[in-house]
Amino acid sequence: MKFLIIGGDAAGMSAASRAKRSMPEMAVTVLEMTHDVSYSACGMPYNIADPEKAIEDLVVRQADVFRQKQGIDLLTGHRADSINPEQKTVAGVTQQGEKFESPYDKLLIATGGSPIVPDLSGFDLPGVLALKSLDHGRKIKAYIDSHNVKKAVIIGMGYIGLEMSESLRARSIEVAMVKPNPRFLPWIAGELSGVVQKEVEANGVNLHMGHLVQKIEPATGGLAVVCEDLTLDADMVIVAIGITPNSECAIVAGLETGIKNAISVDRGLKTSDENIYAAGDCADAYHVVTGEKTWIPLALRANRAGWAVADNICGKPAELEGVAGTSVFKVFDLQVARTGITSKEAVKSGFDSADVVIKTRSRAHAHPGSTTIQVHLIGDRKSGRLLGAQMVGKEGVAHRINAVAVALHAQMTVEQFSQTDLAYAPPFSPVWDPLLTAANQLLKRM
Amino acid sequence: MKFLIIGGDAAGMSAASRAKRSMPEMAVTVLEMTHDVSYSACGMPYNIADPEKAIEDLVVRQADVFRQKQGIDLLTGHRADSINPEQKTVAGVTQQGEKFESPYDKLLIATGGSPIVPDLSGFDLPGVLALKSLDHGRKIKAYIDSHNVKKAVIIGMGYIGLEMSESLRARSIEVAMVKPNPRFLPWIAGELSGVVQKEVEANGVNLHMGHLVQKIEPATGGLAVVCEDLTLDADMVIVAIGITPNSECAIVAGLETGIKNAISVDRGLKTSDENIYAAGDCADAYHVVTGEKTWIPLALRANRAGWAVADNICGKPAELEGVAGTSVFKVFDLQVARTGITSKEAVKSGFDSADVVIKTRSRAHAHPGSTTIQVHLIGDRKSGRLLGAQMVGKEGVAHRINAVAVALHAQMTVEQFSQTDLAYAPPFSPVWDPLLTAANQLLKRM
Repeated sequence: MKFLIIGGDAAGMSAASRAKRSMPEMAVTVLEMTHDVSYSACGMPYNIADPEKAIEDLVVRQADVFRQKQGIDLLTGHRADSINPEQKTVAGVTQQGEKFESPYDKLLIATGGSPIVPDLSGFDLPGVLALKSLDHGRKIKAYIDSHNVKKAVIIGMGYIGLEMSESLRARSIEVAMVKPNPRFLPWIAGELSGVVQKEVEANGVNLHMGHLVQKIEPATGGLAVVCEDLTLDADMVIVAIGITPNSECAIVAGLETGIKNAISVDRGLKTSDENIYAAGDCADAYHVVTGEKTWIPLALRANRAGWAVADNICGKPAELEGVAGTSVFKVFDLQVARTGITSKEAVKSGFDSADVVIKTRSRAHAHPGSTTIQVHLIGDRKSGRLLGAQMVGKEGVAHRINAVAVALHAQMTVEQFSQTDLAYAPPFSPVWDPLLTAANQLLKRM
Repeated sequence: MKFLIIGGDAAGMSAASRAKRSMPEMAVTVLEMTHDVSYSACGMPYNIADPEKAIEDLVVRQADVFRQKQGIDLLTGHRADSINPEQKTVAGVTQQGEKFESPYDKLLIATGGSPIVPDLSGFDLPGVLALKSLDHGRKIKAYIDSHNVKKAVIIGMGYIGLEMSESLRARSIEVAMVKPNPRFLPWIAGELSGVVQKEVEANGVNLHMGHLVQKIEPATGGLAVVCEDLTLDADMVIVAIGITPNSECAIVAGLETGIKNAISVDRGLKTSDENIYAAGDCADAYHVVTGEKTWIPLALRANRAGWAVADNICGKPAELEGVAGTSVFKVFDLQVARTGITSKEAVKSGFDSADVVIKTRSRAHAHPGSTTIQVHLIGDRKSGRLLGAQMVGKEGVAHRINAVAVALHAQMTVEQFSQTDLAYAPPFSPVWDPLLTAANQLLKRM
């Protein structure tokens, strides 16, 4: 049995390691385009914030450990270009320009995603950088040093953009952010996004919503990000407008793709070809709330899907339940978290959605150090089900969201959730946990 | 309709307020023995820690607010002594020594619990104090000041004892703790309790496990806590060996009681008498894991049960699901949390229990400020169900436990829980949340 994997990041290396542990006799080959495998991609903004740290600190396991200790045939600098499902081969080219062809019995496509870079003038200029792979991080770090960056523009205001704004401010770099949508964090209620916006601005970040970037131009001593009625000067530009699944080779090979061009997989991570699996940011998933296909590229899912593919290939049938879209990010002193679907998504999926926003304290009455915590909770009037939550606060947000995530997996109603026995102690919560207060309020609107 | 409530704390005042909101025309009378109503009892250790703060800071709502704004007939200084279920009256005596008799159509017993004080010589000496009511807190605070307390002994090592140890250390008081059980925190795995013990000792608290207190004696300038082979000197002694439900008047009135003498109630909080409800620390509850009756006196349940009683009395049938026994406490820099049942309890309830203890990091690989987090997870081999969890760590414990609590309410299996989509970002968690790592490990032992 020859198990071939395209992509040596979270999903690919998880699958390779687990398959080897499970069946040491199996031939496991990984084709990785770069020379970086197994690193904490999400840690890059924090690493970039610290000039004393090498980007290599983020590497969890060196390539040679996979090769020597785990017996994985890990081929770095190998770019896979095409898949031939009939012949069961993958063809590509090495960094040295040599062509190669690898046969497989079972193939895993774990090609991840790539940052979206708009096809506009100037996005290929030096100093215009994206952030996804370790090499991106390496380049940003090197650019800041070599060009003595004092002023940056971030295009996009998603969580990577926001994490980068904090990272650059920590290095005393002036930061402006720009995006076409007039609403900051449109996926949470206005009260909550207002709190985040205030925090970001209070930390010296200049936000320019409602401005579509038209081009980037070289300017005296740097770059100019040009919108219709706004021009922002910068030494460096970070493009953070989202990522797109790397599914081209799958599409060319005739595999089914779906939402956002992600590769369609079943609950066992199998594509439309019997012998080909896909996992990680290049593949889709079922959403536990809607039951529909979704594409939410997140690290946990990639690792979990890698494992499930290995189990299936090793003869231990594994199916994944689906994702709730749980995520959290830190931006300056705030924690911002979400799980499930938003009010807007609820309407789109045919739910009769009700929602509530509550504002309460992070600690008990009279307990020192208490801060504000806000919860946006969404339910379905028809079924009574809980559909999603968003939260913002300085403490108690990041882990608290998990209670809602579990409730979504269990398809709980808002009423059932409102009855759950959540932890209370004065330093950590009011007697009625903010989530329970929100659920009690939401019940009145159902 | 006359709704009479014995006890003006969490359960009683929650019921009174909700009933009045729901049916303003209803006559609602509360008989409260003390003059303190509606305060954050759990906040007392933190208030005692700060000599600048008045204990009254913990009062959430003054008695007069209930009387004047809410129209509740709140009778403080009224001790209820007996219930006559046939005549539907409650008899008692006021602080001024006047007898009274109150009629009711529906009665709520919300008498709470009392600290257990062993019937041993010297436990009635001045300076031997317990902590449950606001008046207890007031007395401890006054005693520390008036007697210039430099040295205290805490009898018992439960969470109130431990919170008090931190509170007294914050006031530079020397603290020794003593209890008969040779194991520190016996309800969590040894690895976890060892971490807590180390933290407590590192903060200057002297722990004496395995010593049964025989008596307390007056000693030169203070008190002496005497065990067989150990005598501890103190200026003040805190008795924190647990609480017992205040169910005497219910027992005398012929109401059914059960586990630990708590008043037996059904899911609608009704006792064995058609017209009498019980809620809060004096009443029992169903456990969501075992389905059996349990007695876990906690604030959230008291508030929730008070509401449910009011709803039932106001003609809106309400049933409570049960408790998971979720709790958390802070001791110095550690957070200690639990939910569900322990391995020992699992065996007692007939489960074929499997468990695992894992040790992992609170933040992602290479993220600064990461600390150790330990999880003890328990499952049932027969049904696959998740049964309980305990956690210890410096961050990410207090709110993370809620994810397990929700899973217990949903009767999830360990496998289902292991598939949940929990939040990840480098400052808050490894990619695999500690709970998921524990679930993955536990699965291998099921």
